[in-house]
Amino acid sequence: MARLNDKQEEARGGRRGGRRRRAAVEARGLEQRPFGQLRNPYPPLRAVSDDELESLHQAALQILEEIGIEILAKEAQALFAAAGVALPAESERLRLERGLVEESVAKAPARFRLHARNPAHNLEIGGDKVAVCLISSPPNCSDLDGGRRPGNAADFRKFLQLGQSLNAVNLFGGYPVEPIDIHPSVRHLDGLADTIRLSDKVFRAYSLGRQRNLDAIEMARIARGVSDEQLDREPSLYTVVNVNSPLKLDGPMCQGIIEMARRNQPTAVTPFTLAGAMAPVTVAGALAQQHAEALAGLTLGQLANPGAPMLYGGFTSNVDMKSGAPAFGTPEYMKAAVVGGQLARRLGLPYRSSNVNAANSVDAQAAYESVFSLWGAIMGGGHLLHHGCGWLEGGLCASFEKVVLDADLIQMIAAFFDPLQIDEESLALDAIREVGPGGHFFGTEHTQARYRTAFYAPMLSDWRNFEAWSEAGAPDAARHANRLYKQLLEDYEAPPLESAVREELEAFVAKRKEEGGVPTDF
Amino acid sequence: MARLNDKQEEARGGRRGGRRRRAAVEARGLEQRPFGQLRNPYPPLRAVSDDELESLHQAALQILEEIGIEILAKEAQALFAAAGVALPAESERLRLERGLVEESVAKAPARFRLHARNPAHNLEIGGDKVAVCLISSPPNCSDLDGGRRPGNAADFRKFLQLGQSLNAVNLFGGYPVEPIDIHPSVRHLDGLADTIRLSDKVFRAYSLGRQRNLDAIEMARIARGVSDEQLDREPSLYTVVNVNSPLKLDGPMCQGIIEMARRNQPTAVTPFTLAGAMAPVTVAGALAQQHAEALAGLTLGQLANPGAPMLYGGFTSNVDMKSGAPAFGTPEYMKAAVVGGQLARRLGLPYRSSNVNAANSVDAQAAYESVFSLWGAIMGGGHLLHHGCGWLEGGLCASFEKVVLDADLIQMIAAFFDPLQIDEESLALDAIREVGPGGHFFGTEHTQARYRTAFYAPMLSDWRNFEAWSEAGAPDAARHANRLYKQLLEDYEAPPLESAVREELEAFVAKRKEEGGVPTDF
Repeated sequence: MARLNDKQEEARGGRRGGRRRRAAVEARGLEQRPFGQLRNPYPPLRAVSDDELESLHQAALQILEEIGIEILAKEAQALFAAAGVALPAESERLRLERGLVEESVAKAPARFRLHARNPAHNLEIGGDKVAVCLISSPPNCSDLDGGRRPGNAADFRKFLQLGQSLNAVNLFGGYPVEPIDIHPSVRHLDGLADTIRLSDKVFRAYSLGRQRNLDAIEMARIARGVSDEQLDREPSLYTVVNVNSPLKLDGPMCQGIIEMARRNQPTAVTPFTLAGAMAPVTVAGALAQQHAEALAGLTLGQLANPGAPMLYGGFTSNVDMKSGAPAFGTPEYMKAAVVGGQLARRLGLPYRSSNVNAANSVDAQAAYESVFSLWGAIMGGGHLLHHGCGWLEGGLCASFEKVVLDADLIQMIAAFFDPLQIDEESLALDAIREVGPGGHFFGTEHTQARYRTAFYAPMLSDWRNFEAWSEAGAPDAARHANRLYKQLLEDYEAPPLESAVREELEAFVAKRKEEGGVPTDF
Repeated sequence: MARLNDKQEEARGGRRGGRRRRAAVEARGLEQRPFGQLRNPYPPLRAVSDDELESLHQAALQILEEIGIEILAKEAQALFAAAGVALPAESERLRLERGLVEESVAKAPARFRLHARNPAHNLEIGGDKVAVCLISSPPNCSDLDGGRRPGNAADFRKFLQLGQSLNAVNLFGGYPVEPIDIHPSVRHLDGLADTIRLSDKVFRAYSLGRQRNLDAIEMARIARGVSDEQLDREPSLYTVVNVNSPLKLDGPMCQGIIEMARRNQPTAVTPFTLAGAMAPVTVAGALAQQHAEALAGLTLGQLANPGAPMLYGGFTSNVDMKSGAPAFGTPEYMKAAVVGGQLARRLGLPYRSSNVNAANSVDAQAAYESVFSLWGAIMGGGHLLHHGCGWLEGGLCASFEKVVLDADLIQMIAAFFDPLQIDEESLALDAIREVGPGGHFFGTEHTQARYRTAFYAPMLSDWRNFEAWSEAGAPDAARHANRLYKQLLEDYEAPPLESAVREELEAFVAKRKEEGGVPTDF
């Protein structure tokens, strides 16, 4: 996949920017793998038996049938009612029969393609592929120079540039940091216009009221320069709905699912079920609830448009029971990520998971919690990896340094997943014969012909010996990441955007702003 | 396993130290999982197909048959000659026929038990169990207070105490740091006497000349208070032989394998095949060479004593081709660790791998390279995890802080591997019903009855919010580990040692010292 995309990029040849940018990056010694998706060669892990999986699934169906879920949008209620669900007079709690739920969810496809405005950045969602998102939605951001600060438009744009520059970032999972200095009524218009100008990768719409979804869909259409009909055939953006756990889908969530499904655009229904807080303290209970809530959202989408692409999302973790603080990248998180994958496969749907941690700085904890998350999420069969690069503080902060560190982690996993070449040349018996007992391989022709590309060259890892490293000021990984993110921003070049598209986009944003954007009283 | 061992420990009841120590540790809030081995519930990963695995195996047999391996001990040559191997007149390079190699190695058992002087610390080597070693053999050690310094007896003993105190450490893989202020002629005597006094876990003998192995075997016998015959039935210590890659087994290595096998004590034959340096630059070539070298050592052991327990060791990694520096925890390391497991299973032998990194401080790099190592080594089916806790700088430094950090990583993996309880109680439908849409689970009886033990409580991870963490001085994970290792040393109590055993041990060491220890001109 990686190689194919590399060839595709080269085939684009004449495109402005690509070659020059790559040359510039290489000149400075920052080599990256070509753009491409992780391809997981291993069968997904199974943490529970088929019987246990069935118990979880049945428990979720029982929750929906007996306890029910609050659906806080009249339009959604109407869709359920049309499907035979009784609407109670005095409450908005709907009981969903298992037959309806299972039949509806079975209509969603197992895999689909997400179309970027640059076709070289199209993504396959499902199968053995993983799509990696930049971090989304934290209220703060930080780097070593400026410290931690509230999200703002200037940092927001830098993160977009970084996400565009890093080949390990396949798409944008939302605003990499919340640009809170842009008024909420027009934030989605400016934010998405920036995203489209500064990047040519797939992006996400926020489901914060119907109009925001509609605006985002239209902007995706303009960016790709396609007709409404083509957009309806080709998923080109997506949304995430987190559910108000426990057991509540609010109005904007319902509207997001419905509007996206109607246009054949995917929703990742992802209950945020922290065991011990918004979900039972047992991982099994939290997963049963996650599954029930996800099934409800998926059913709604399929009622709005049977066969619309959707993702099963899992975001079960635990809290620190001493303080109530959320914890991430924990053993419980890993286990829930693995079982989440089993539940998604039980439904035959692509699976969204995340790369998360609860550290406050880019230290060893940030790294081990992240790699544990990746271990659970990717080996568990994840297809869409949210917060793939940049997440810190349990999601309260986007770190410029962590973006680069995570991109390196993703590339290392990609290299780990690369097939191992086993043939006469790679088995190297001639070289072993030539060197013989007690010799050294560096000088052999076999080594000289291969050493430049034999191994993945990490962006961050400092492999100097202690003395050389100390003389250089003993830089830690966060310090290296700081230097690299600034280098990437310096080397950044905006991807080409046809002037007709640019003008149409600007006109749309101007018109929508004139209309006042969207109400902010949701 | 963990629970069983906990019960075993409690059953030991009257034993001095155990209860008091545990109580003290708990009083200070440093909770650990009970002593026990990791139990891996997942089928080991397969990075190459059966056909490719066979190609690797056949390439290794071809290396031994056609290229040969230097065997630098007359006694070993004699064993090979007795098995029909031709001894060349002008060289010590022996060509080993595949029939002899395969028939010999097939005699080694797939699993065995290692007996500690405290039976609660006995270990199963093989199957789905993993035994975790403390770091071994670095020339330097460090902590945040004293910085990096050459290994010495005082630090050596502190590491032993730490290894005894941490339940995640199952055994000692060697000297946790080289006590270079003890003369090499008697270092093994003092070092092992310290190990036996300060700990009751399994330890390793260094294969640095026959006499050192014989002394270590006798000291293990004395420590356990058993007869020679019982020791010969019950493996009670082990050794590691790294091979002088490429393709050379020196005298002390051969003697170590032979002496240990004769007493039915295991050797982990572990070629240190750095791709691009002592092995071909291709991972396949390095693995073919690793396999050939391991097979030669294993064959020697089985010729010395057919059926003696042995381990297949893999230690293939890559070098930084810009500098020649060794790299660890890389994608190539992970891949080699996984294929190493496949090769070990091809032979039906337990598999030794390692937890390694090339970082110079306990930073994000140290953590991600370590967790990547663990991912490859453990998911690849490792049974004996060398350098499980404490390794830094590619093995040149033992870090007190890294010992604690790694112990936490091991415990997190253990918790990840704990079976997930799926039953009516854990599915928690009553609690979900009780809380209902929009509620909170903390106050429920279901939560209150479980929250204290519901989740693994990491020793290190700091989950405070950014403000509280900043007010506390923004401690990183290394800082927390520094505090914890000192707390563990403060709480340390030596395990009981019967006075008869102590006296016999002291008398043996005194006698051997009088005899001058061992010559140091090997």
